[in-house]
Amino acid sequence: METPTAEIIALGNELTIGRTVNSNATKISLELTKIGIDVIRHTTIRDLPEEIITTIREVFSRHPDIVVLTGGLGPTHDDIQIENLSRALDLELVDNDQAMSMITERYNKIGRDMPSMVKKMGKMPRGSIPLKNSAGTAPGVLLHHNGVLSISLPGVPREMMAILKEVAIPLLQDRFGSRDIIELGFEVYNVGETQIIPFTELVMKEFPEFNYKSHPKKIIREKTQLWLSLHIYTFGSENMERLEKACKLWKSKIDTLVDAKTTEIRSVFSGEFVPEE
Amino acid sequence: METPTAEIIALGNELTIGRTVNSNATKISLELTKIGIDVIRHTTIRDLPEEIITTIREVFSRHPDIVVLTGGLGPTHDDIQIENLSRALDLELVDNDQAMSMITERYNKIGRDMPSMVKKMGKMPRGSIPLKNSAGTAPGVLLHHNGVLSISLPGVPREMMAILKEVAIPLLQDRFGSRDIIELGFEVYNVGETQIIPFTELVMKEFPEFNYKSHPKKIIREKTQLWLSLHIYTFGSENMERLEKACKLWKSKIDTLVDAKTTEIRSVFSGEFVPEE
Repeated sequence: METPTAEIIALGNELTIGRTVNSNATKISLELTKIGIDVIRHTTIRDLPEEIITTIREVFSRHPDIVVLTGGLGPTHDDIQIENLSRALDLELVDNDQAMSMITERYNKIGRDMPSMVKKMGKMPRGSIPLKNSAGTAPGVLLHHNGVLSISLPGVPREMMAILKEVAIPLLQDRFGSRDIIELGFEVYNVGETQIIPFTELVMKEFPEFNYKSHPKKIIREKTQLWLSLHIYTFGSENMERLEKACKLWKSKIDTLVDAKTTEIRSVFSGEFVPEE
Repeated sequence: METPTAEIIALGNELTIGRTVNSNATKISLELTKIGIDVIRHTTIRDLPEEIITTIREVFSRHPDIVVLTGGLGPTHDDIQIENLSRALDLELVDNDQAMSMITERYNKIGRDMPSMVKKMGKMPRGSIPLKNSAGTAPGVLLHHNGVLSISLPGVPREMMAILKEVAIPLLQDRFGSRDIIELGFEVYNVGETQIIPFTELVMKEFPEFNYKSHPKKIIREKTQLWLSLHIYTFGSENMERLEKACKLWKSKIDTLVDAKTTEIRSVFSGEFVPEE
């Protein structure tokens, strides 16, 4: 099977004015990448109906396998994701009984009266499947449309992650199977980015099927501790042997540079990986 | 004058696989917002020539006043921004003498020999103006094309910020003038998002020209300390008096709720504002 592709749409003026870092797009990307889905694009837009509709139509017209939308799923005036998803796809916005029971259940659980405006969160495009939100009130929305599977998530990170990890990821694994991302990397000290270029090119020529990245990090000029983080990855655990070979070759070539100090090869995504700034 | 608009394009597999948070897009947005430029979209893509070319053409075809590109500006194999900017706009890639002197000067300053591959960073689309990079080797690139002003920046945050703040922002202020973003906000404790909806709607109706955002924050259920951060903004300091009125009205209405505790009204962007996670 081909590697499934995904696009992420993040909504919110707080993102486009630079008030809030779009860590949601990163977290969603990481969870999708971990199960072998290739995230090809993030689009971040303002809370404007016309722009939301245009963007959703653009993204669907590129036919990724999956679209994940985040932000604007609650009861307030700027929570306009679902209404505009519905308009963008020309699907009627209808009361979803299953979503309404999730919302009612939530209010019963926290023991508060249910205000009338939360009914908005029970409305979804016709054909939607609501996704349980264990950390808040607004259910997520799953929709199949023209061969694209779309998943609508809230913007509040705690609620977004709850639906993503508890409901959306298992569902995507069921639908697309699970393919590991395999990746290895190491750090290099005391050499500049330009010095390793010939070695990277040599390894890339011998193992052209992988993705290679070099990231310059903090540079302490006084001690000339130039620091590079090198990283190589692909999808599918069947490629691990060759990936390891490639990474070892890369490291051994760089070790021939007199001043270079390299660290051990390791997997950066293993354990509880936290995305870097 | 109309508020100038900007789009941001961020390049890098590290962003789309969720390895690195796209804080560059946030930082660029914040600096542009502060001088009154309306950032309307961020697009984040992988290091693939076809996707970079397609995206650049799409963004230019929407005719924002400004396009800022970040990532892929150095000497390595994945530094392919400039080459593909040139292809996307059908502009010949030529040696830029001014850029080459910046690069030579840099190598003289740090006292190292200049490897031949850095010459790549001296090549720019015909008609480009190089932008001095005080924190690294690769100069930024300024280009006017079909009424769009594009600014190419590196992805290494330190270098990106150096060119942005020292060269690009003053240049944009010269070109577009400077219009303040004016914004005010306050926090509310002990009330839920749904409870303030009628008041927000009331204020929005009286002051429809402003942008209103409410952000739910950490919720400590045991103590029912529901916490909302409320924020209102627009461009142009001439609107400050009305903005203050609107914000005071919003706060005074919420204060009528028995349990609500509100903080003083303040400007979140004042001083050394750091974008929130």
